[in-house]
Amino acid sequence: MQVPSPSVREAASMYGTAVAVFLVILVAALQGSAPAESPFPFHIPLDPEGTLELSWNVSYAQETVYFQLLVRELKAGVLFGMSDRGELENADLVVLWTDRDGAYFGDAWSDQKGQVHLDSQQDYQLLRAQRTPEGLYLLFKRPFGTCDPNDYLIEDGTVHLVYGFLEEPLRSLEAINTSGLRTGLQRVQLLKPSIPQPALPADTRTMEIRAPDVLIPGQQTTYWCYVTELPDGFPRHHIVMYEPIVTKGNEALVHHMEVFQCATEFETIPHFSGPCDSKMKPQRLNFCRHVLAAWALGAKAFYYPEEAGLAFGGPGSSRFLRLEVHYHNPLVITGRRDSSGIRLYYTAALRRFDAGIMELGLAYTPVMAIPPQETAFVLTGYCTDKCTQLALPASGIHIFASQLHTHLTGQKVVTVLARDGRETEIVNRDNHYSPHFQVLRVSVASALQGDVLITSCTYNTEDRRLATVGGFGILEEMCVNYVHYYPQTQLELCKSAVDPGFLHKYFRLVNRFNSEEVCTCPQASVPEQFASVPWNSFNREVLKALYGFAPISMHCNRSSAVRFQGEWNQQPLPEIVSRLEEPTPHCPASQAQSPAGPTVLNIGGGKG
Amino acid sequence: MQVPSPSVREAASMYGTAVAVFLVILVAALQGSAPAESPFPFHIPLDPEGTLELSWNVSYAQETVYFQLLVRELKAGVLFGMSDRGELENADLVVLWTDRDGAYFGDAWSDQKGQVHLDSQQDYQLLRAQRTPEGLYLLFKRPFGTCDPNDYLIEDGTVHLVYGFLEEPLRSLEAINTSGLRTGLQRVQLLKPSIPQPALPADTRTMEIRAPDVLIPGQQTTYWCYVTELPDGFPRHHIVMYEPIVTKGNEALVHHMEVFQCATEFETIPHFSGPCDSKMKPQRLNFCRHVLAAWALGAKAFYYPEEAGLAFGGPGSSRFLRLEVHYHNPLVITGRRDSSGIRLYYTAALRRFDAGIMELGLAYTPVMAIPPQETAFVLTGYCTDKCTQLALPASGIHIFASQLHTHLTGQKVVTVLARDGRETEIVNRDNHYSPHFQVLRVSVASALQGDVLITSCTYNTEDRRLATVGGFGILEEMCVNYVHYYPQTQLELCKSAVDPGFLHKYFRLVNRFNSEEVCTCPQASVPEQFASVPWNSFNREVLKALYGFAPISMHCNRSSAVRFQGEWNQQPLPEIVSRLEEPTPHCPASQAQSPAGPTVLNIGGGKG
Repeated sequence: MQVPSPSVREAASMYGTAVAVFLVILVAALQGSAPAESPFPFHIPLDPEGTLELSWNVSYAQETVYFQLLVRELKAGVLFGMSDRGELENADLVVLWTDRDGAYFGDAWSDQKGQVHLDSQQDYQLLRAQRTPEGLYLLFKRPFGTCDPNDYLIEDGTVHLVYGFLEEPLRSLEAINTSGLRTGLQRVQLLKPSIPQPALPADTRTMEIRAPDVLIPGQQTTYWCYVTELPDGFPRHHIVMYEPIVTKGNEALVHHMEVFQCATEFETIPHFSGPCDSKMKPQRLNFCRHVLAAWALGAKAFYYPEEAGLAFGGPGSSRFLRLEVHYHNPLVITGRRDSSGIRLYYTAALRRFDAGIMELGLAYTPVMAIPPQETAFVLTGYCTDKCTQLALPASGIHIFASQLHTHLTGQKVVTVLARDGRETEIVNRDNHYSPHFQVLRVSVASALQGDVLITSCTYNTEDRRLATVGGFGILEEMCVNYVHYYPQTQLELCKSAVDPGFLHKYFRLVNRFNSEEVCTCPQASVPEQFASVPWNSFNREVLKALYGFAPISMHCNRSSAVRFQGEWNQQPLPEIVSRLEEPTPHCPASQAQSPAGPTVLNIGGGKG
Repeated sequence: MQVPSPSVREAASMYGTAVAVFLVILVAALQGSAPAESPFPFHIPLDPEGTLELSWNVSYAQETVYFQLLVRELKAGVLFGMSDRGELENADLVVLWTDRDGAYFGDAWSDQKGQVHLDSQQDYQLLRAQRTPEGLYLLFKRPFGTCDPNDYLIEDGTVHLVYGFLEEPLRSLEAINTSGLRTGLQRVQLLKPSIPQPALPADTRTMEIRAPDVLIPGQQTTYWCYVTELPDGFPRHHIVMYEPIVTKGNEALVHHMEVFQCATEFETIPHFSGPCDSKMKPQRLNFCRHVLAAWALGAKAFYYPEEAGLAFGGPGSSRFLRLEVHYHNPLVITGRRDSSGIRLYYTAALRRFDAGIMELGLAYTPVMAIPPQETAFVLTGYCTDKCTQLALPASGIHIFASQLHTHLTGQKVVTVLARDGRETEIVNRDNHYSPHFQVLRVSVASALQGDVLITSCTYNTEDRRLATVGGFGILEEMCVNYVHYYPQTQLELCKSAVDPGFLHKYFRLVNRFNSEEVCTCPQASVPEQFASVPWNSFNREVLKALYGFAPISMHCNRSSAVRFQGEWNQQPLPEIVSRLEEPTPHCPASQAQSPAGPTVLNIGGGKG
């Protein structure tokens, strides 16, 4: 294995056109140990044409991800990597590129202008390159953290995978600017908690909730709504597992799917199959919002914990289900039919506990607002000790999954559990959250009476001219964590918002430090008041300080309307005396073993 | 060269006592190129006994420091390294240690409990180990930045060197906890700007201002004051260079020295030689504050730029000089005599420009205050465009040196120059500033009419119970940069403070958001008002926001009393639209070449 210096290469080789690349089997011996049963349990198509297909596996012991990238129609090379939010600038990349002499594989990064540079530290390690009739398979690995400031830190939560195609051979790697390439992104949960799968009960039965041979619309984004129903007299069961069914050939089009149960208030729900934003859609479908199952691209089956199941069927449960399928069709392919959906595994032998869903975070109220032009403004909602003391059982609850939710400006979400004023664990954290990738994730935590659950969302409002207030509208914001847990309790909603009296004091303060601008008269609404704040540094900082100091109103509710008994206004902010430390990423000890330059792939030569 | 794994070592070797270590010449070949003339131009004793002596050189091309450590009486090993503020916890260390089998050299770090760990990345590279009659010489190098999160980043400004002695051989490196060792710290300016030394004029003469054979007091800290005078009728000269004279044997005791000129107001100043805090010290010595020369440990000669000199002698200049020597005597050595001082090089052939000194930063007023229990509170003082427009010459000024100044809680100081709202250069920055190491540093910058000079100080008030206000007292704070420049102008002082009216609004706001606490009545003084603020998060954050927003009062003065003409109250804060980016430290490309484990030093064996 040679390690040429890039500058020598650069001098020695010239542009060639239309180079046919003959890549030769087995460049470096397979290193590391991928698990025996299925070396790459996770799969995802990267581009809508299906040219690039990623499979991967995670070794938690080695803190390393093993990637297998299938490149179906290789031209002059490909880029693959990760970036903060899916941009091709400031991305951490591996590049397979060719010049007239051969093909190379190297760890690289792109700067803020998209210019690609070879990394001084080669942390993507090529394990095998194999030419097959299907295409070129590249097998490589990378540690979660590398301690290279140009590298992406692989964390729990959303990862924005990026890719690009090189159409022509290159003089050198430095000749690449990502802005000139055909590129794209794919969001995925790369790290999956390795929790043993509970065995399914012997009497497990299945039910498929599938799209009825839908003609996928020739438009980029479609949310398809389909209403179906449980058999008449279907008794109470427990869902214990579910898995996706994706119609073959549509793997790159089916982005995510959810099954909702409708509200029990309605005796019947009209049948429907069509786009969710259709004018023909019956109004009653808006009352089908109780999640039974949620899947997104890259996820596998979801198993309930052994002791619990999600109840459906029987009295007090609607017979009507709504399937929602998000078709992501950026190439506007037409004429494609789809019957994707979700297969529910359920049992009549009810498990010990019903699973429940609880809403944590911020109440839907305009008193919580984000100034415009903020790059990372944090709002925090609390589930206080007083509420958990009252509403949780003495033995506490077990959280086993969580789904984060914001509207368009949300970029990070985290829920932390605090006990006796000390943060003790992360319930769920996503440092690269996207509202376009709201997946249900396994997340294990136990909450006891008196615990505090703190949910913080980080927003980017750089493209907004006015303050963004809390609320239901798509241009308003939310900060929610839907926590799945057992045993089910009556607590449906444990959220907070700043005390309105203190917000009123804030508006009066703004007027005193600036020329009178905000109407503090009784008829002015909070959104109107926020809209008239002059957003100088002082008003921004003081709003931040207010949210970190002022008392809160608690929503500690049985259902969205009924509060638990007690005084919930003007509650003190929970006091946190000790924060969880950010884990320092491990620098891989084996750095000295990794090559200092790119790996040469070419053995058979590649002149065209 | 073997690279044993530490765990194997640990199992194989046992404690030995009183091991005599025979270290053998030349372990690794000398790598890198130290400059020819003097390989190690800079020297400093580390411990007060003089057991450890450090010499060093800097290669800016390689961004690497070459260290030569002389260990005079080696027992079982030594630790040497750097840490944020001289603590032995969270320190970046090289360790020379021995077990029964041999001696080892390795890059290590100590955690927050002082426990030492071997670094996964070995960035201190041993070049040579040599046993001489004087002691053991260790020659090693380290890049400024390593990209290892456990490593210290070597920057301009103060560096806190730390050291420790190992008395007994060790089973393994991990057996070291710095809390159990004899340790110490030494502050030094490690990086020195490499500016060519201007040639001295042919007629250069010298004058020595030295302590008069002083008996160094047997106490840890002494500031010695000595008054001397220029010859009668000594005409106007330019100082063009000065250098330290340290009495042989006292190198570890003489910490810093300054020569001040007295105020011209006094016809005569009484002679004196004694501690500066002595009751016998004449009051008039307090008026000897005009700096002629300043030296501190580790510094070499100071050269004025070719075009400028510091005027002294002649009419309008006091004949009286005060020498101040700081004796640092932690071992309370008695009976030692000292004649250290400074040698001035001066010329009668006056250079083109007189050098001047200008004071930047915060005005000495209590309106600028730091809440208690802050770990990094920043106060900022401005020299505005309006003042530089009025007071600087059309051709601007050349800054060539700078001395930063705060009182006890100052930990960082930086002055940035901004032009047309954009930060363009750092005039001086010290991220590890210590009030105990206020040295004059070379710093090159040019300021034009209309430029803004922004001086920020970061304070740590964790040990204070009340707010720390600005002022002259040692328990009050300052934020000053004494800038040395030419050509001399009439501008002596360009400093700011928050508008007092806005501070009054702040105290009223505090009262409205809390229960009434701060007296906003006319008779309450600002320090009293600050003392009664309840320091919750809101009052802290709003004070910060106020300082970042409220208009300022400018002190744009000819001398400390006389302002330039114009309106200097309620001035807008300078608007900065673009900040200087923090430079990303270069990760050394040669990482793959450095050893993955410690270097074995022992060839001749070391059984005792």
